[in-house]
Amino acid sequence: MTLDDLDTPVLTVDLDGVDRNIRVVQSYMDTHGIAFRPHIKTHKIPAFAHRQVAAGAVGVTCQKLGEAEVMAAAHVLDILVTFNIVGRQKLERLMRLCRMARMAVVADSEYTVRGYAEATRSEGGDLRVLVEMDTGGRRAGVQSPEEAVRLARQIDAAPGLRFGGLMTYPTTAEAPAILAETVRQLEAVGLRAEVISGGGTACQFHAHERAPVNEHRSGTYIYNDRSTVAAGVATWNDCAARVIATVVSRPTPDRMILDGGSKTFTNDPTGEDGFGYFPDYPEAVMYSMSEEHGHVDISRCRRKPEIGERVVVIPNHACGITNLHDEVMVHRKGRVEAIWKVQARGLIR
Amino acid sequence: MTLDDLDTPVLTVDLDGVDRNIRVVQSYMDTHGIAFRPHIKTHKIPAFAHRQVAAGAVGVTCQKLGEAEVMAAAHVLDILVTFNIVGRQKLERLMRLCRMARMAVVADSEYTVRGYAEATRSEGGDLRVLVEMDTGGRRAGVQSPEEAVRLARQIDAAPGLRFGGLMTYPTTAEAPAILAETVRQLEAVGLRAEVISGGGTACQFHAHERAPVNEHRSGTYIYNDRSTVAAGVATWNDCAARVIATVVSRPTPDRMILDGGSKTFTNDPTGEDGFGYFPDYPEAVMYSMSEEHGHVDISRCRRKPEIGERVVVIPNHACGITNLHDEVMVHRKGRVEAIWKVQARGLIR
Repeated sequence: MTLDDLDTPVLTVDLDGVDRNIRVVQSYMDTHGIAFRPHIKTHKIPAFAHRQVAAGAVGVTCQKLGEAEVMAAAHVLDILVTFNIVGRQKLERLMRLCRMARMAVVADSEYTVRGYAEATRSEGGDLRVLVEMDTGGRRAGVQSPEEAVRLARQIDAAPGLRFGGLMTYPTTAEAPAILAETVRQLEAVGLRAEVISGGGTACQFHAHERAPVNEHRSGTYIYNDRSTVAAGVATWNDCAARVIATVVSRPTPDRMILDGGSKTFTNDPTGEDGFGYFPDYPEAVMYSMSEEHGHVDISRCRRKPEIGERVVVIPNHACGITNLHDEVMVHRKGRVEAIWKVQARGLIR
Repeated sequence: MTLDDLDTPVLTVDLDGVDRNIRVVQSYMDTHGIAFRPHIKTHKIPAFAHRQVAAGAVGVTCQKLGEAEVMAAAHVLDILVTFNIVGRQKLERLMRLCRMARMAVVADSEYTVRGYAEATRSEGGDLRVLVEMDTGGRRAGVQSPEEAVRLARQIDAAPGLRFGGLMTYPTTAEAPAILAETVRQLEAVGLRAEVISGGGTACQFHAHERAPVNEHRSGTYIYNDRSTVAAGVATWNDCAARVIATVVSRPTPDRMILDGGSKTFTNDPTGEDGFGYFPDYPEAVMYSMSEEHGHVDISRCRRKPEIGERVVVIPNHACGITNLHDEVMVHRKGRVEAIWKVQARGLIR
């Protein structure tokens, strides 16, 4: 079976491309002595996580417990969940995971640390907790080294918890100074940040300039997409995840309609024009979408695709797109090698 | 079990609200003698389609064959697929559906009609085909009455096909004149447009002003959302699909972080500010999202939610959100009555 035999729209993944992307980034991290902990949110498939670990990753990153449960069940056994785990039901699940895998989580509040402390007290377990710091990403995270030290001491004082270090996202240019000052203040109270974990595919090749960061997390790099090409860390050739769609309507000379829209491609923006890139029709612009139709301006294309023609689309955002598709068609040079279920798709809790 | 027992983020559907929304729109259509054919893309659940038909709908609308297959398997047996069905694999599936349900499809090109004609010739079947017209929606659809008549004659001449009428989306203010002129030209060549089908929740209460339209398709109305409130066809109270999320971080006095982001809410825009509406915190603005974090500005809230608090979010776009969630928690007055799988979710082919 080749890609030509697959009905559309369909999400395809080039295994040669994936292997190359894994090798390139792992090799960069190895060269610079930075631990690499890929984020599985992009692919959500244990088989890809195993490839990342086999290539040299120290473990994986998950964003949700549901993702971690899928990975642990598939014997991916070193997992950092970069999320404040809050609430009784999730803490129970986290304790179960601790009995199955080497788990670490993050916290940015006394509330979250208290939850971890109580869960390990009543359920046992040995949980590493990293303090999440906001170093300019303006998402979650403590706002100052002083707050980080306060939480680190709270973690250190809890019998079932171990202070695991610091975590931030993304690794901003400002992060090193903030993290270094935090490390200094931690040492002053006798605490050591074993892991200092930064993240982001867009900034991954700056990781060696961001000491004291000693671990990096990238997700999108395994597939790449229009956003990582725009960020300058990949070329179109590195984009391993592509959608094949079919032209189902050519209502006007300048407009073509595809058989996939926002439920196939997501509305995730890149800052670039349109909702995908057409490697065979670089002048085509998917200027808008309905849920199941892609609306493409082909006025600037020399040759214009006809109804029934199949076109390849490189998505804006690989992580968003795999979250819509139940399976990916894994191929080498167009020959389908496997159909893999996106096992952790939809596991939002 | 009540909604309070459910871990978050979770998509909830108020069955009383759904029943009321179904009743209100069906009653409007009944009053004006307009056939109502709800679009199941919003809920993707046969149980809701059965409620819509039981209330008086003439059948349902689907956008993809996968949706139609789920509906037919659940004994929803009158289905219009408002999509140009193109390609051998899909045409084979369409022929199978014809043996199970009363099927209609649309076409806006000779290519598409030829596919239907060949499929019915080789596989048998009795397929109604409506001509899709672009009446200002600028998606698919023929551009003129003359083109519509040409396709109608092509359909009428094919032994296995029956010319079923005209279809457009949305029912623009310009649609009546274009459709009436097309009906006139059809009559001049001895063809009758039995069904003239318009669509759109935003314009649904104008359907009685849009003759010769005699059938209407609405999807979002069953749940409603921020977009239908913005369009003036629903109130917040009519919004039956809501997400419950938990505050997992309060990094600053003005920022709260939720345990759901673009993989829970979609990046679908409404033109309104932010990615959801907080009925209990109307001043809160979800100004951006990561994949699993919602970033909310609470600077204008008098009372500010604390970590661990559960907050209700009315989504921007109900149809997008159900496409992310594997199941909905169906409740009446907060008591969970059923957990329904979103059976046609992810069936993009």
